[in-house]
Formats: sequence, C-alpha cells, structure tokens
Amino acid sequence: MTSSPPRRRGRPGYDQAAILRTAVELFNRRGYDATSMGDLAKELGLSKAAIYHHVESKEQLLAAALNDALDELTAVVTEAVRPEAEGSAHERLRAVVRRSVEVLIAHQPSVTLLLRVRGNSEVELDALQRRRRLDEQLAELVSAAVQEGSLRADLPPALVGRLLFGLVNSLVEWYQPSGSDDPATVADALTTMAFDGLTTPR
Amino acid sequence: MTSSPPRRRGRPGYDQAAILRTAVELFNRRGYDATSMGDLAKELGLSKAAIYHHVESKEQLLAAALNDALDELTAVVTEAVRPEAEGSAHERLRAVVRRSVEVLIAHQPSVTLLLRVRGNSEVELDALQRRRRLDEQLAELVSAAVQEGSLRADLPPALVGRLLFGLVNSLVEWYQPSGSDDPATVADALTTMAFDGLTTPR
Repeated sequence: MTSSPPRRRGRPGYDQAAILRTAVELFNRRGYDATSMGDLAKELGLSKAAIYHHVESKEQLLAAALNDALDELTAVVTEAVRPEAEGSAHERLRAVVRRSVEVLIAHQPSVTLLLRVRGNSEVELDALQRRRRLDEQLAELVSAAVQEGSLRADLPPALVGRLLFGLVNSLVEWYQPSGSDDPATVADALTTMAFDGLTTPR
Repeated sequence: MTSSPPRRRGRPGYDQAAILRTAVELFNRRGYDATSMGDLAKELGLSKAAIYHHVESKEQLLAAALNDALDELTAVVTEAVRPEAEGSAHERLRAVVRRSVEVLIAHQPSVTLLLRVRGNSEVELDALQRRRRLDEQLAELVSAAVQEGSLRADLPPALVGRLLFGLVNSLVEWYQPSGSDDPATVADALTTMAFDGLTTPR
C-alpha cells in the first residue's frame, strides 16, 4: 500500500517487536516445531532475508517470547517473597495470584506459549527451570501463610500451590480480550473463589 | 517373545481397547493431526493391515476417545441437573466438581485429548458441541445455587462456571498418577478451595 521505493532494511513499519508478535501468534496456532521461518515470512508478507535482518533465528524469537512471560511473572513473585516485603504471607500470596492474572491477561500470547513448552531444546529447558523456580517460591509462600495461621492447614501446601497456579493458568484456554469480562472482574472473581470460596459467607 | 505361529487376526493380546489406549497416548504426545496410522502401527509393533482389522480409521479412534471422556462427564452433569435430583443446587454443584475431578483422573488421557480438540473435523465439532452443552448446564447449576442463596451473588455465574471447569481441567497439565497425591486428596483439596476458600475459617 506504499509507493515509497524499496528499502534495504526490510519493509517499513516492521520492527522486531511486530515480527515477534506475529511469530508468537503463529507458534500458538500451529505449534512451534511445525512453524518455519518461511511460514513466518509468508504470514508477514516479507522475504526470509528481511526477517533475518531483524532476528537471528526462530529460537531467538521463542526465547524472547518466553522471557517476556517469565520476566513479568518473576517480577510478581519476587516482589512478594523478598525479605523486606510488607504484609502478611496471606496478603502477599493473594497479591501474587491477583497480579499473575493481570500479567497473564496482558501477555496472554507469550504466557500461552510458555505453558505449552515441553523441554525440546536448551531454550525450552531454561524456561521450564524458571517456571519450576516460580512454583517453588509460590509453594514456600503457601507454607508461610499456613504457618502464620491464615491459610488452611488441612491441605498439602504443594498441592495448593499447583491448584492456584493451575487455576490462573487455565485462563489461557478460554479468556478472550473481546469478551464481556474485563481483567479486573476476572482477577476479583478468581481470587475471591480461591481464598474466600464460592459459598455465601455466613 | 512368543513362539506361537502367526495368526491372521493380528498379534495375540491386541484388541480394540489396547489399540485405542496406545493411539490416545500417541495423539497426546505428538498431536492428533501429526500422527498417522503408520506411526500407530509402528508404536504397536503391528502391521497397518492388522490395525485396520480392529479399527476403521484414525478418526474412529479419535471419536472413541472423545466419547469415552464425554460420556463420563455427561453422566456426572446429567445426574446433577435431572429434575428429580436430590439435594440443594449447592450440594449438586459441589458433587459435580468433585466427581469431575475423579473422572478426569480416571480418564486422564482421553480428557487431555478432549481438551486439545479445536474443531478441525466433524468429530471434533461434535465433541466441542457436547463440551459447550456441559458448560451451559454447569452455568445453570451455578445460577440455581446463587438463586437459592447458597452461592455468592457478587460474581458473574458464567465466569464462575468457567473458573470451576478451568480449575478442574487444569489437572491434566500436572497431575501424575505416580505422584504423591491420590485422587481423593486432590478432589478434596480442589472442592475445598473452590467452595470454602483457602483462608482459615474463623
């Protein structure tokens, strides 16, 4: 749609961020392994050479997407578990869950990709290790809340951690930004269900 | 490992159920679309002809697996919503959630396959339609529990239904039969979290 002369540095308007967005969407739709750089070029209407001007490899795109998701989730958890963090363990755990919902919704494509990673390469194994660290930190926060007496002691902490993250992660399967539930409503409903329960309070 | 003479009706010990089990495992590992009947034959150590003696097509295997999951889940939901069902809507909803966890764990491979279906064929579209019907019935049960005053009225019922099924379905991502949590413990923890909340009761 442009009549400007051809440029050596790729099509105008495409930068690394735009290529990454399309790549993540394509990886989620077709699967990372089944998507080639040729597929990505076709989807973007670019030559492969133009893409390689912006990005090194398919794996670099994967790493960038996984880091996008992991950096945000790590920031949420790190904030809650640092020694000088304010508030009870219960408050900090509830904040982690609420903010994780917000991160998931704001970064849904890259979190979706993260949750499908199975460890088929060095990049994927690194991502799985970072995810495991987050799971451990969450489980520690659950244990701290049980110890302070604010969280049920009758459920296994590791199981509670998995259920909580499982609940948050399940949003990628059905949440639609175009739907009727805005992020704050979803975050409220999810944290209320998890911490206060669905049963009417007496 | 057998010295018995070759048989015309496939290898001894293989029947349709055993072929289905292996097919579902393979579909989950590699993706349904990426798995051929040749792959399945190789995995089973059978000839393709031997497999076709037992099953009509790859799609028949998919349909059988999806129906295995859907028949069980439908039985759970139908039992709870039939007009003569006993108990409050709250009790019936809680029973649906608990029994869905048990079904998911007992039929984890076929439920996993069901949750990955995206509607690429008639069989998949039928399965999606049956899933949607279950979602609707669950949402109606949530509304009935809100109306009887036993379930929080401050959360949108459709959203609550999606969160509840999302929580149950998230088990396919991490539950391992060989792990330390038995099905009853998981079902207890999940229903307790969803209905009573994780916060220590006053």
